Amino acid sequence: MITLHHLDQSRSFRILWLLEEIKQPYELKRYYRDSSTHLAPDSLKTIHPLGKSPVLEWDGKVIAESGAIVELLIQKLAPHLAPDMDESTYVDYLQWIHFSESSAMLPFLLKTFNTIETKQGTKLVFLENYTQVEFDKVFGHLNEYLKDKEFLVADRLTGADFMMGFGLHALVYHMGQGENYPHIQRYVAGLSQLPSWQAAVQIEQNGVKSQK
Amino acid sequence: MITLHHLDQSRSFRILWLLEEIKQPYELKRYYRDSSTHLAPDSLKTIHPLGKSPVLEWDGKVIAESGAIVELLIQKLAPHLAPDMDESTYVDYLQWIHFSESSAMLPFLLKTFNTIETKQGTKLVFLENYTQVEFDKVFGHLNEYLKDKEFLVADRLTGADFMMGFGLHALVYHMGQGENYPHIQRYVAGLSQLPSWQAAVQIEQNGVKSQK
Repeated sequence: MITLHHLDQSRSFRILWLLEEIKQPYELKRYYRDSSTHLAPDSLKTIHPLGKSPVLEWDGKVIAESGAIVELLIQKLAPHLAPDMDESTYVDYLQWIHFSESSAMLPFLLKTFNTIETKQGTKLVFLENYTQVEFDKVFGHLNEYLKDKEFLVADRLTGADFMMGFGLHALVYHMGQGENYPHIQRYVAGLSQLPSWQAAVQIEQNGVKSQK
Repeated sequence: MITLHHLDQSRSFRILWLLEEIKQPYELKRYYRDSSTHLAPDSLKTIHPLGKSPVLEWDGKVIAESGAIVELLIQKLAPHLAPDMDESTYVDYLQWIHFSESSAMLPFLLKTFNTIETKQGTKLVFLENYTQVEFDKVFGHLNEYLKDKEFLVADRLTGADFMMGFGLHALVYHMGQGENYPHIQRYVAGLSQLPSWQAAVQIEQNGVKSQK
């Protein structure tokens, strides 16, 4: 049995969406952010010392890191969501999976953190400029790459979309960057029409877990 | 043929070290940071639009993201550097590979960037505290995990060490955090004794590429 320890409004959406897509039975344990601090509750630390989410319990193992969870679930339960290892697009698959938490997440988080910092009245010098340069470079590149694409890799839904879709949805809808990056906006709109994405949103919003 | 586009003092050390370990023929193309700005040269942008390093050219593909490069090189050329997919330690392998650029790299980079910012005279409020809390949590956890270990996974050298060793060496030797994290310090000291690590250091420092 698979148990997903799921924190609302977190990277765990990637795994919730993937589990709905692959239609595997799973148990959902829900955690909610503190309404004032927006931090995860301490109860997550009883599952993993870093108090992170997503965390998966599976075959007696506690597995953190959404990239590892996506790779594992697809290898073992849903190989149709990745190119075969001997296809040339497998290289692109691995690149975009890793891109999501390295190249893409850093400028996204820096911009988010800078906003919190400047709301305190701080005037940033280095961080303001560095963040904007990285942000424009990374998301400009991605926007251009997505120009004629519905999915990131191999013209079909793969694990790379599960990794990237979550952050890009936030980029468009929480950060309001859709007009600057129209191809990213269109890509996210397409993903959010998928039945599995909509099921995951329902589960997160309504607290209703789909019946298996 | 494999070509590594290698920037000094960058994540590309992971790949240089791995290529030396697996003893595959490869071509090294070297790039140097600007001595005043410490930025990568624009010439890297002719290889990959983000101007990143490492970038590997291999079988007609341009491959960025060190996590993807490590996974690929090991899958195709050095499977002995990963547990088999059906071993339970394979899960740990993937976790630590992804941990290196997500959980670990964020507080490391935030601390580095905060130092640059505060040298400009800025007094940080949110970022100072947030960074320190994350830093202590992540590296305290890792230090504890490494307590009785020489390698991260399966009691032997794997791709996880290639991903983590680079940043942890900087944590100990550039950030001076060795005393705070003695098990990380011992782990890094062990890795840096490996012939492949020493060969990579020689190549980076002396500009001499080992003969194949």
